[in-house]
Amino acid sequence: MKKRVAVIGAGPSGLAVLRAFETARRAGIDVPEVVCFEKQSNWGGLWNYTWRTGLDEFGEPVHGSMYRYLWSNGPKECLEFADYSFKEHFGRVIPSYPPRAVLHHYIAGRVEKSGVRAYIRFLTPVRNVVWSEETQSFSVTVKDLQKDEHYTEAFDDVVVANGHFSVPNMPAFPGIEGFLGRVMHAHDFRAADEFAGKNVLLVGSSYSAEDIGTQCHKYGAASVTFSYRTRPMGFDWPDTFEEKPLIARFVGKTAYFIDGTSKTVDAVVLCTGYQHSFPFLPDDLRLKTNNRLYPLGLYKGVVWERNPHLFYIGMQDQYYTFNMFDAQAWFARDVILGRIALPHAAAQEADIKDWRAREEALTNPFEAIDYQTDYVRDLLSATDYPDFDVEKVAELFKEWEHHKVEGILTYRNKSYPSVLTGDMAPVHHTPWMEALDDSLEAFLGVQEAAE
Amino acid sequence: MKKRVAVIGAGPSGLAVLRAFETARRAGIDVPEVVCFEKQSNWGGLWNYTWRTGLDEFGEPVHGSMYRYLWSNGPKECLEFADYSFKEHFGRVIPSYPPRAVLHHYIAGRVEKSGVRAYIRFLTPVRNVVWSEETQSFSVTVKDLQKDEHYTEAFDDVVVANGHFSVPNMPAFPGIEGFLGRVMHAHDFRAADEFAGKNVLLVGSSYSAEDIGTQCHKYGAASVTFSYRTRPMGFDWPDTFEEKPLIARFVGKTAYFIDGTSKTVDAVVLCTGYQHSFPFLPDDLRLKTNNRLYPLGLYKGVVWERNPHLFYIGMQDQYYTFNMFDAQAWFARDVILGRIALPHAAAQEADIKDWRAREEALTNPFEAIDYQTDYVRDLLSATDYPDFDVEKVAELFKEWEHHKVEGILTYRNKSYPSVLTGDMAPVHHTPWMEALDDSLEAFLGVQEAAE
Repeated sequence: MKKRVAVIGAGPSGLAVLRAFETARRAGIDVPEVVCFEKQSNWGGLWNYTWRTGLDEFGEPVHGSMYRYLWSNGPKECLEFADYSFKEHFGRVIPSYPPRAVLHHYIAGRVEKSGVRAYIRFLTPVRNVVWSEETQSFSVTVKDLQKDEHYTEAFDDVVVANGHFSVPNMPAFPGIEGFLGRVMHAHDFRAADEFAGKNVLLVGSSYSAEDIGTQCHKYGAASVTFSYRTRPMGFDWPDTFEEKPLIARFVGKTAYFIDGTSKTVDAVVLCTGYQHSFPFLPDDLRLKTNNRLYPLGLYKGVVWERNPHLFYIGMQDQYYTFNMFDAQAWFARDVILGRIALPHAAAQEADIKDWRAREEALTNPFEAIDYQTDYVRDLLSATDYPDFDVEKVAELFKEWEHHKVEGILTYRNKSYPSVLTGDMAPVHHTPWMEALDDSLEAFLGVQEAAE
Repeated sequence: MKKRVAVIGAGPSGLAVLRAFETARRAGIDVPEVVCFEKQSNWGGLWNYTWRTGLDEFGEPVHGSMYRYLWSNGPKECLEFADYSFKEHFGRVIPSYPPRAVLHHYIAGRVEKSGVRAYIRFLTPVRNVVWSEETQSFSVTVKDLQKDEHYTEAFDDVVVANGHFSVPNMPAFPGIEGFLGRVMHAHDFRAADEFAGKNVLLVGSSYSAEDIGTQCHKYGAASVTFSYRTRPMGFDWPDTFEEKPLIARFVGKTAYFIDGTSKTVDAVVLCTGYQHSFPFLPDDLRLKTNNRLYPLGLYKGVVWERNPHLFYIGMQDQYYTFNMFDAQAWFARDVILGRIALPHAAAQEADIKDWRAREEALTNPFEAIDYQTDYVRDLLSATDYPDFDVEKVAELFKEWEHHKVEGILTYRNKSYPSVLTGDMAPVHHTPWMEALDDSLEAFLGVQEAAE
């Protein structure tokens, strides 16, 4: 009987797995039957936008953390699929920082061309995964949301690719239960419009805080206040921005910080990160980690050490994204196909420990970029995923870091060359701060007219 | 070996089951071991207030739909426990429409005195319930949220009491994805304060819409617009209120209704009801129903027809609440104890069909009140739950309906007599529209001073 592989999630990570198998199949290799279970009604994972927050129309936790007006916060040249360039997809070069709809179009375009949509069962969240030592296979129980019914199927391998930016990490602060305005997590943030004229407090000092803060400013917030736990972001913020240390307590609509200062605000957005969450996995199959470059328990960051029939894609903290998921997907595929032999347990353990030790020695973002570059290169060397110039990508990441420091509101106006095609990206027709329309049409259309 | 009963949920319904067994135990009856699994950190179900929305600190869907400033929307005399009067709890008579904290105090007081807290495992959501024909028992798998671990235990009987006002029913409307303001379900509504000065659109025409609308008005909303599907509520609303038919579409911040009129608003609150949701139950044990007075599949509205070891408490649409849950809990207990013999399947089916046919013939709220009164009386006749004057309660419900029609902003200033003690409730020290502080202290304290 043909082997069966279950892929959980049809976002960039899960789609990478489908693409990996399909590429092999089209190359004449005998591949397993692949079934991808996706909770949402469309593919694209986080790159879908939904107006919904909390629970969706089926009572399922909303996957999306995507908000209106999100533009890529890193150069597209750093995430370009090595087997499908932006130029191939759009038929021309496009600027380096596309808005959400453009990236979704690009992700979808590749898999559309692969014809893998038929492998995906949409509106089908996975409820339970059980490994049987006896049969050496998994029982995967899912819910067909439209039929409101469960069913169970057997699989030889399971690839977990449900992402880790969907389940908010929600700390509490004294008095927050009495805050007399809107309190939400970044996960539920949808549109900066509602904060026009408002004083907004963002708790956190990573990408969500930085980006939602600048969004709110762009769309007219009266002031933006960040509260950090460890250190301020330290960008050259506009005058209406402030960075404050940790919140000691809330009284009414006033936040008091641990340095004794205070700020009265209209809304609080907790940009406090996300939890790795796998409610469908039993404890012995479940990755438990915070968001870091090298979670333990995964050989090559992919293969579940305790059971080599279970794989995780994209569970790392990320500089590299789509192209790293691809490298991981090709690796997982080749383990499943028997093209990569796994070393014995002690060697796996030693390899993981080595990577982890190197991770723990990192002292700044530039080292972290080099570290993840090494990791991606290591994966690339193991499969036939098209090689690409990861050193050049690392350089782009470092340029990007510098550009952010030069101007947090202007870095998205920069351009970078594709490491695949060598083409320099054109400058976008409108500086980011003035580009209020984030539609694909606005991004591509006017540019087309200008060409 | 002692029989084991699992109770899912420690809200008013689950606590009623604990109280029922404990009352029997204290009367010298040999009762099973009872274990109650509760997702939240405290008992009280919906009567807990949390500032959290969406997912909680453990990534679990937030149970609470409770909002700040909620006062009972029906007379407390209609929900009084027959074995524990308000007078017994507070040591004196109190007004008829208490705020949330006062009702939570009352609910908790009874079970505190019963000493049943030790039976409850808090922060422990149920993940899976499996019936074994072979062992004639259930395997119940739960998650210990604090340990981040699952475990499974065997039970002879399972009582499902997780409520049905936690998982929102969320319809979509054309253009809602582009609405440039806050969109939320009533489930995520927490405080009217943030809508002061705002134009609020409430979709729905039942209790949530009515109550959140009047709340927003009380705390300073500029205008309140309701949109109904079937018919307007028709209360004598203040001038800043409007009732509109169904929404045809949204454009920007403007809602267009099917009668061709429109309204530009700042926020949309979907008061569109809740789904019965039992994600921990397999299909053959799972009640599928909308919110109605007589769901099918439950003998006496309590016993799962297809497996008499499974019970549901409080799954009906409700005029009666706490005292009906009690009557159901005592009934379930007595079936489990073997004190009530279940009739054969055909007789159960006939009984259910009869009740359902009567339900379907109901034409107005007054008939519905009488119907649920009959249902509660029927349950009461089967157990030793203290008899109470349900006909008198039915009269109070009808008075209440009239009082709402007389004045939707003033009905909470009315008083009613306890059907248990005969005491007339005192008039509250402050008319509801002026009572902005909803704390227990404000409600009880000033009154005390006045006495």
